[in-house]
Amino acid sequence: MESKFEHQLVLWPADDLNLRLQRVRRLMSEAGLDAVLLSDNTNAFYITGRVIRGYIYIENSGRTLFFVRRPSGLLGDNIHQIRKPEDITAILGNTAARTIGLELDSLAYSMVERLRKVFPDSEIGNASPVMRGARAVKTPLEIYLITESGVKQTEAYRHIPHLYQEGMTDIEFQIEIERELRLGGCLGQFRVTGDDMEIYMGNVLTGDNADAPSPYDFAMGGAGASPSLPVGADGTIIRPNAVVMVDVNGNFNGYMTDMTRCYSAGEPSAEAVKANELSRKICHAVADAAVAGAAASDLYKMAVAMADEAGMAQYFMGHRYQAGFIGHGLGITINEAPVLAPRSRDVLEAGNVIAVEPKFVIPGVGAVGVENTFVVQPSGPAKCLTLAPEEIVNLQ
Amino acid sequence: MESKFEHQLVLWPADDLNLRLQRVRRLMSEAGLDAVLLSDNTNAFYITGRVIRGYIYIENSGRTLFFVRRPSGLLGDNIHQIRKPEDITAILGNTAARTIGLELDSLAYSMVERLRKVFPDSEIGNASPVMRGARAVKTPLEIYLITESGVKQTEAYRHIPHLYQEGMTDIEFQIEIERELRLGGCLGQFRVTGDDMEIYMGNVLTGDNADAPSPYDFAMGGAGASPSLPVGADGTIIRPNAVVMVDVNGNFNGYMTDMTRCYSAGEPSAEAVKANELSRKICHAVADAAVAGAAASDLYKMAVAMADEAGMAQYFMGHRYQAGFIGHGLGITINEAPVLAPRSRDVLEAGNVIAVEPKFVIPGVGAVGVENTFVVQPSGPAKCLTLAPEEIVNLQ
Repeated sequence: MESKFEHQLVLWPADDLNLRLQRVRRLMSEAGLDAVLLSDNTNAFYITGRVIRGYIYIENSGRTLFFVRRPSGLLGDNIHQIRKPEDITAILGNTAARTIGLELDSLAYSMVERLRKVFPDSEIGNASPVMRGARAVKTPLEIYLITESGVKQTEAYRHIPHLYQEGMTDIEFQIEIERELRLGGCLGQFRVTGDDMEIYMGNVLTGDNADAPSPYDFAMGGAGASPSLPVGADGTIIRPNAVVMVDVNGNFNGYMTDMTRCYSAGEPSAEAVKANELSRKICHAVADAAVAGAAASDLYKMAVAMADEAGMAQYFMGHRYQAGFIGHGLGITINEAPVLAPRSRDVLEAGNVIAVEPKFVIPGVGAVGVENTFVVQPSGPAKCLTLAPEEIVNLQ
Repeated sequence: MESKFEHQLVLWPADDLNLRLQRVRRLMSEAGLDAVLLSDNTNAFYITGRVIRGYIYIENSGRTLFFVRRPSGLLGDNIHQIRKPEDITAILGNTAARTIGLELDSLAYSMVERLRKVFPDSEIGNASPVMRGARAVKTPLEIYLITESGVKQTEAYRHIPHLYQEGMTDIEFQIEIERELRLGGCLGQFRVTGDDMEIYMGNVLTGDNADAPSPYDFAMGGAGASPSLPVGADGTIIRPNAVVMVDVNGNFNGYMTDMTRCYSAGEPSAEAVKANELSRKICHAVADAAVAGAAASDLYKMAVAMADEAGMAQYFMGHRYQAGFIGHGLGITINEAPVLAPRSRDVLEAGNVIAVEPKFVIPGVGAVGVENTFVVQPSGPAKCLTLAPEEIVNLQ
């Protein structure tokens, strides 16, 4: 697999990299930052196409420098091999920017204090909102990669009905789904923004477990297999005719799609079918309204109004605990901007990629509903990238 | 699965919790902290036995208070349901400690600045070294849980030889191993200390891929399946007679063991067998020397000296890139104290749990060696918790 390509530090084509840097620089200007220093794995991947240990220094009007700790021997322009962040001081000399943004929302406090000393004459600002904003609008290559993940996730989901065997627990079913996705090229890893979120590969919910509250900010809960990872499948046996909600990992290339589908071990109940149809209706109505310029909070309100009108408000986005959003941006991580929530100030732009997940948790039925990933278009409705059949699929 | 037990916030028995709190408080005294405020998932799990969204406030001489955001409805003493960290100010009133430690090595800078305002009259210190020190010496229950993970991981590893089929790639082999471990109760999740480390389930290496450098601080590298997760298996076909190193997840209950074993698709070469035997010899010599009071740096030097004496120094802990340690503490995360490295200042104590992994990467042979997890005893050699056969197992 060795090739010259592999040794290039920046794996993105120059045009696509330039689009990313242009967005970053425009938002740097708005934030009053003369430079940003990035080291987060997600931001390193965003800029270079690979994870490195080191720092990417982007001047607003000028250079993009790469201070690489590991691996060594990468090729490209402006690469400086360093052993520790303090080596940056000597390399920049008196050219360090006046105001430098660090990733204050993700970098540990101690690390920020250490980096502050690397730039003794600079003022430190926050690069996190800049990068969050830049990454919210995807480049053509990012949309290509997300589309590819959607195709592969859709293909893997088509095999899910064949994986069920009578008497399985939710965990056993999930394990076969994990294997199927992995064989289809899924990397498994679920990148999230923020330290508080943890999950392994995905969430499979059936029965009353769907209503078990979780400490995490995912749309759905579940007790999980252990109090050390309290989310998702908990060992519940999948009962005859019970609905099973499957929401598992769509990371096939570092960019993710998010798709939820429901299955049932036999004929689903009329109540489950009705809730699933309502979820589909809301999901696609939101996508139709997700035009450039739409307020994310309006999309949230529209979804809640539709659930309310159908008399299903008390089951919408959970029952014992209700999530405070119906959709979220995604890309390198599963929770990017924009957020479809009541107090969101986000306004949709062409190139936003959003997952819309208007789900229900109904006592005696469980979790029901669909989730799809959409790209916001320059005009017209958002385009769906997750194309597995949306009906509740009979597993028998 | 609902029980009263499930609703208790603190799942550890009182005696074991008290041992944990005693250690934390002793180290708080040494660090000059009057209280610590913990919110990291790993520290929340350490104190309560579950992951919660919220804050645990431990006074050095006094109360342990739980400020819980999610889930609601947990039972126990001193629980305050809060909506946001700012609610803590009113609850503590004028009883806030003078010096309060926050997790400065893991909490994001912005979050520390936000929490600083929750305690306007307190001085902020660093709770991270305190928690790292406390967690380095395991309680009896922690050792029980790590032992349990070791038993289950050992059982799952016994099935590995049956999972191989001729012509498999390293990734395909890994996927079957993942499934086997998951069916045996493995939670999958690999908790690490520090944002920089990423891995999915484990590392399976064969052939020259073992020598591909990784940006991560794991002992072994590998190119990985994607530059977005550059570690481990990369799709290399497992060649006849080639060695395959398997180092996969031992997290069965929130506490981990770490075990590496080698397999070969046919008779392993004499060179591979010799390196594996040397690795075993070093591993157990280090464990025999890992007595309470031993300097971690001496254990490192001893391992390097043994590799050197055998003429294998240039292959020890990697070839193109050599890792700077031969072992590490583990428990809730895979990289805790003590660290067996040349400049480590750690001194071993009874109750330390360490993984010892003296591995080789030999061009033309690949990665070879064993890794075991040991508990340091009050006297005598450390006790091994990972008991799968250590010979290179023939997969055919």
